Amino acid sequence: MTKAHTEYLTFNTRKRKEMIHITDQVEAIVRRSGIRDGLCFVSPMHITAAVYVNDHESGLIEDISTWLEQLAPENPAYRHHQTGEDNGDAHLKALLLHHETTLPVTDGHLDLGTWQRIFYAEFDGQRPKRLIVKVLGIA
Amino acid sequence: MTKAHTEYLTFNTRKRKEMIHITDQVEAIVRRSGIRDGLCFVSPMHITAAVYVNDHESGLIEDISTWLEQLAPENPAYRHHQTGEDNGDAHLKALLLHHETTLPVTDGHLDLGTWQRIFYAEFDGQRPKRLIVKVLGIA
Amino acid sequence: MTKAHTEYLTFNTRKRKEMIHITDQVEAIVRRSGIRDGLCFVSPMHITAAVYVNDHESGLIEDISTWLEQLAPENPAYRHHQTGEDNGDAHLKALLLHHETTLPVTDGHLDLGTWQRIFYAEFDGQRPKRLIVKVLGIA
Repeated sequence: MTKAHTEYLTFNTRKRKEMIHITDQVEAIVRRSGIRDGLCFVSPMHITAAVYVNDHESGLIEDISTWLEQLAPENPAYRHHQTGEDNGDAHLKALLLHHETTLPVTDGHLDLGTWQRIFYAEFDGQRPKRLIVKVLGIA
Repeated sequence: MTKAHTEYLTFNTRKRKEMIHITDQVEAIVRRSGIRDGLCFVSPMHITAAVYVNDHESGLIEDISTWLEQLAPENPAYRHHQTGEDNGDAHLKALLLHHETTLPVTDGHLDLGTWQRIFYAEFDGQRPKRLIVKVLGIA
Repeated sequence: MTKAHTEYLTFNTRKRKEMIHITDQVEAIVRRSGIRDGLCFVSPMHITAAVYVNDHESGLIEDISTWLEQLAPENPAYRHHQTGEDNGDAHLKALLLHHETTLPVTDGHLDLGTWQRIFYAEFDGQRPKRLIVKVLGIA
């Protein structure tokens, strides 16, 4: 039987920029969906955040943050700031990491490699922001 | 009932590089699909264009274009140009934004956040180019 | 009838960094799946590799490699290297190209544009690494 299952997560980060490990929460949603084989879509519903898959290692997470700041730096001169915003860099950082990811589900679990972990990358937080997880497949 | 619905859009941009807002066209395809719950795949069928989700704000769109030009500049020295092409930068810009996106469909509509809008990012236009939209889910 | 079909490919690259053309292998999996209409998910199960869609032209492949090295260079100073690793750049390169892609399947084939080809981008190879291909759709 084909099934779709959707849940929304809300995050309110303590720091403006923060990487939050969410593999366990996504895996729990896959379990609750009852879907055995299919795809799991994960995405923030915001334009200054991203989701990415990589290693859960604190040094690397710092490296990623430093690298994003180099490639998409904070800069008062962004044209977007003429609207009163000050988060131009957050939009660019989100584009760089891509705003969504799809993950495979096999035998009722996320079918990830040993070191693949899912992160919510927030670049303009400190307020409630939502993430959508939708599992589509065969129950 | 599981259903798949596919449509192709054609664009012929006036400028060589252009960002085109396509949320309304994708939403109309979702509506015509009759699919209530599932995933909507959107992608150019070309290798010098991308699709991205972000804010529909003209200053930001200029910021994104400027930023892409900094990270993946036009440059006569690309090896690809030895084939007679002159669009090496367009390939790199397309890779940076990723050539496809998937979007969630809930209750028969794109399930996007308030400010999430879909853009077709063309980096070598001024000729007819196609985009595929495929909705897969439960009708 | 809704169907999901999963296969795993293993690669052991000769060079540490290598781009491997895999369109034919993915198309063969789509054929074996028996799925006529749906989506095909492709992703390495590793965090130092990516998958991307672009031109199968050797000059461009060199341009992409050079460009990735500029934007995410090898550098002994990555904090990740304090764990004993030396592949910090490989993680960043993988993030830049995105670790997964989804592709449309129509009439039992990958529904790609004329020049769209699928590449496995390995940045820390010379050992067996796996890639998952999952096709979901209507048989």
